[in-house]
Amino acid sequence: MEFHYPNGKKYNPSQQQIAKKGHSKPIRYGNRGMTLEEDLNLTNQYYLEIGHAVIHKKPTPIQIVQVDYPARSAAVIKEAYFKQPSTTDYNGVYKGRYIDFEAKETKNLHSFPLQNFHEHQIRHMIQVEQQKGISFVIIRFTTTDEVFLLPSQHLFRFWERMKNGGRKSIKKEEIENYGKTIPIKYQPRIDYLEVVDILYHSYF
Amino acid sequence: MEFHYPNGKKYNPSQQQIAKKGHSKPIRYGNRGMTLEEDLNLTNQYYLEIGHAVIHKKPTPIQIVQVDYPARSAAVIKEAYFKQPSTTDYNGVYKGRYIDFEAKETKNLHSFPLQNFHEHQIRHMIQVEQQKGISFVIIRFTTTDEVFLLPSQHLFRFWERMKNGGRKSIKKEEIENYGKTIPIKYQPRIDYLEVVDILYHSYF
Repeated sequence: MEFHYPNGKKYNPSQQQIAKKGHSKPIRYGNRGMTLEEDLNLTNQYYLEIGHAVIHKKPTPIQIVQVDYPARSAAVIKEAYFKQPSTTDYNGVYKGRYIDFEAKETKNLHSFPLQNFHEHQIRHMIQVEQQKGISFVIIRFTTTDEVFLLPSQHLFRFWERMKNGGRKSIKKEEIENYGKTIPIKYQPRIDYLEVVDILYHSYF
Repeated sequence: MEFHYPNGKKYNPSQQQIAKKGHSKPIRYGNRGMTLEEDLNLTNQYYLEIGHAVIHKKPTPIQIVQVDYPARSAAVIKEAYFKQPSTTDYNGVYKGRYIDFEAKETKNLHSFPLQNFHEHQIRHMIQVEQQKGISFVIIRFTTTDEVFLLPSQHLFRFWERMKNGGRKSIKKEEIENYGKTIPIKYQPRIDYLEVVDILYHSYF
């Protein structure tokens, strides 16, 4: 998660604002994770504005160690650490159904490394599935700029394969076979709900 | 939100652990907000363990200004500020449906001050309702230790009444009339899903 933060640089809300408003391309921080995150934030912002869905990225969990309360000014966190999230990054509601997903990128051309996921995230996805929530992952191959939606139940199989001594990654062709390409548009940028409508039509 | 944090004191995870595991009563920080939050965290923890629902409290959004990366050790957040959340605190999935709520406490005996909510939280609840999500607030009257579930559509009416120059609070009797008492138990502590089953049975 720390990759999502400026490396000791000043945080610049104005840039974020520009990106959020969609008046310009999202700022590139030379950080692939931020790029997909920015695109998804714009997508979710658009879904929200047109009343299509209410899906937000969860704030990164922080373990706060020390907070100062300067007189007559805002509380300042002086020491804190990034905590490993116990859930996925994105969730919300679409047509009454619960939507829950994680978004990851890879520079690889032919496979996606499973080490991108944590055991507890997989556990969370399983719990969501058990509650009949709609759970999936969005995977971007940055080199070819292809984005796929892979339903969690397939991710679970590849995760099990790894746990049983099999390959530590998902072949791109496996993602193509069991998942679906998400169309990249100007707006919404990553129209993943269009794919949700197709893959989960029985849910609605 | 800053009330939810130790006032410059060292953060003590071990206490939280004890409370989370439910091996003891949640630690009282002399902070009523924490009390309801702890009880709800225990409740959600229990729901999760028995496979009844997957509902989590969202992390508090933090605006990070400066992060240090000491060699060979974890990134340290050196300057950060609490941001006002743009959504409610709790969300998740129950029987496939999206659940979204905010939890508030008051020392008052006869009314609940609407200033406890922010305009953008109300907006979020309206958006959730429009997506057919299940949206409500949990209100605890700490003095009498009574807890109520009030569906958002009623909160909206009281909010509008205030915007139109009416009273700035909800009478307790109004909460009793339009909401429902949540039974306080040993486990789960605040069994709000039992009330959801009754008030939202048409959703399932």
